[in-house]
Amino acid sequence: MDVFKFVSPEIIFGPGTATECGLSASRLGAKRVFVVTDRGVHASGWLERVLGSLNDNGLECIVWKDVSPNPKDYEIYCGVNKYIDNKCDSLLAVGGGSPIDAAKAVALLVSNGGKLSDYEEIDSITRPLPPIVAVTTTAGSGSEVSQFSIIVNAPEKRKMTIVSKSLIPYISIHDPQLLETLNNQAMIYSGVHVLTHAIEAYVSKGATPMTDLFALNAITLAADSLRLVKGGKRSTDLNQSMAMANLNAGLAFSNAILGAVHAITHQISGWLDIPAGMVDAVLLPHVVEYNLPANPLKYARIAEALGEKVTSVQNGADKVIPAIKNLFAVLELPDKLSDLGINMKLYPLLAENITKDICLVTNPMNIGLNDVIDLLGRAC
Amino acid sequence: MDVFKFVSPEIIFGPGTATECGLSASRLGAKRVFVVTDRGVHASGWLERVLGSLNDNGLECIVWKDVSPNPKDYEIYCGVNKYIDNKCDSLLAVGGGSPIDAAKAVALLVSNGGKLSDYEEIDSITRPLPPIVAVTTTAGSGSEVSQFSIIVNAPEKRKMTIVSKSLIPYISIHDPQLLETLNNQAMIYSGVHVLTHAIEAYVSKGATPMTDLFALNAITLAADSLRLVKGGKRSTDLNQSMAMANLNAGLAFSNAILGAVHAITHQISGWLDIPAGMVDAVLLPHVVEYNLPANPLKYARIAEALGEKVTSVQNGADKVIPAIKNLFAVLELPDKLSDLGINMKLYPLLAENITKDICLVTNPMNIGLNDVIDLLGRAC
Repeated sequence: MDVFKFVSPEIIFGPGTATECGLSASRLGAKRVFVVTDRGVHASGWLERVLGSLNDNGLECIVWKDVSPNPKDYEIYCGVNKYIDNKCDSLLAVGGGSPIDAAKAVALLVSNGGKLSDYEEIDSITRPLPPIVAVTTTAGSGSEVSQFSIIVNAPEKRKMTIVSKSLIPYISIHDPQLLETLNNQAMIYSGVHVLTHAIEAYVSKGATPMTDLFALNAITLAADSLRLVKGGKRSTDLNQSMAMANLNAGLAFSNAILGAVHAITHQISGWLDIPAGMVDAVLLPHVVEYNLPANPLKYARIAEALGEKVTSVQNGADKVIPAIKNLFAVLELPDKLSDLGINMKLYPLLAENITKDICLVTNPMNIGLNDVIDLLGRAC
Repeated sequence: MDVFKFVSPEIIFGPGTATECGLSASRLGAKRVFVVTDRGVHASGWLERVLGSLNDNGLECIVWKDVSPNPKDYEIYCGVNKYIDNKCDSLLAVGGGSPIDAAKAVALLVSNGGKLSDYEEIDSITRPLPPIVAVTTTAGSGSEVSQFSIIVNAPEKRKMTIVSKSLIPYISIHDPQLLETLNNQAMIYSGVHVLTHAIEAYVSKGATPMTDLFALNAITLAADSLRLVKGGKRSTDLNQSMAMANLNAGLAFSNAILGAVHAITHQISGWLDIPAGMVDAVLLPHVVEYNLPANPLKYARIAEALGEKVTSVQNGADKVIPAIKNLFAVLELPDKLSDLGINMKLYPLLAENITKDICLVTNPMNIGLNDVIDLLGRAC
């Protein structure tokens, strides 16, 4: 066993807990809260619930609801100006990964200055950030518990992955009621993203006994929940299981980091502005095939967590790719990059950006530019 | 699924990590560190390693090494004076549960004032505490990650259980090398305490899906490790497993709270000044018998985690008490309170104090004064 570190925000989980955001911000000393969200959340009606809670706790709030999916660096700079102009002292992020990542990026720049690309090295943040409370409205990104913020570098058309303990929200609120306004297709894409987080964290070079516990639990919860969503069995319990899968996967990957699927998905979903889970679904079987020799035992356990009966390490390792493909076939997910509308001519440039992504460092097999190009070719 | 909260300190785990305490304290803004430890730790030589790390990071330190096993309230008041007189701004606890609990109690009083008995209600702490870093030298108390501080009320001859999120150290360091100076018998008593933490947290009324993951993992790790320690198989790996069991059990019980074994053990170990694990071993089978009807499924899973082959819930529930008794017989632990030298005449007074212990609130079965007296009678 090697040395490891583990960090988690304070977690509040359960139906109705979104209304604890006001008290949570207040406990952290907030007076003027910068609320970061997007138009989808605003339209869903959940924003009112959250703002009511801030109001009930005597907090002033400035709402910034212009964050787009796959948030861009120039949006962050607008957010920074708005935060400073309004003399805010804290942040509340309400949404999926995009508003939460955007809130983290704003918090980073208002306290540490400079531009986002200054912080692409691990742990390059030196000054403390203002307190962030996150309320997740999806079960997908894990950003509400993670060290990650992913922002598009618009001039370079690539995603920047910023990783630091400082980016973990102080308090993370997981209210499964908020999943009620997500349609089944959105739930499937975000659920596949959760499953991919869990699988990549489990086999990561940075995996630890702590992250393994969360990752394996998340794989089972996510796979079981996804089958039920596809089967039209949405219920309060199912939304809770999905929220729990997301929380477990988030704690796993925040501490173990990820692998090649995420390095590739970051760039493709950023380029095409499509849901990450759609890209994950195409890539995961190919990346598992590439990585399998690094740790057959762990892949056998993944097969078991996906519901396969496993009789030996070899047997489990043989079953893991068919198990993933079967699940994705049931979920009717795309299985070719060409189905996503990606142009093969982009591959060399994409591959270049992919090799810069920090997630490649913890991929279980070493992977270079040619390997990435080869993987893209297989997934084509 | 109900609403739940989960809190964990930042965790640093692994051989050699004790020397990270200086950098850890420094990251929290410490300048003058109040080092809380005991004579045993001082004699073991580990204190020098820790002080070296503080020194290397340019921190001044004031060492208080007078904490006794089962620390008393009057000792804490001395510690408070020493902290204030020396103008300290932070604490480093180095030891088992006693120095860590003592450091928490000092941190509480220097920031919130008053006396310890003012804080026996859950979450009655209002002001923030100075930062605490904990380095555990045993694998037993879990105090380094927990919300608990247990201090003897000397005039009343009872233990006070103080519970608050504010008592969780900011950073908790688990260096398995520090277990090398613990003899096998001490390791067995502390390991039984870990196993009891895990079992009581798993069946607690406050258990959650998060704490269940840690608790069940800790039960298997602790039981397997205890058998190996008794078999004379001490090794680097075994010390690591024991440290991991302790960490997992600590995170489980800090968030799920405990039950009747702990409520009783707190008072008896405080009265007789003997290791908690020794008292746990006598009580656990009797308390499991009392609690079993509350949750046969969970007790069946405990039997499985202890290594039993379980074919049904009833089968597992039938096997759990024999499994615990067999393990304790292998470990040659006492199985009667009378073996510990406790006088039956004390029972009414002990029972009175036991019913005041906060751990009874989350015991899976409701339990009153007469039930406690009856349990003590059976364990006699």
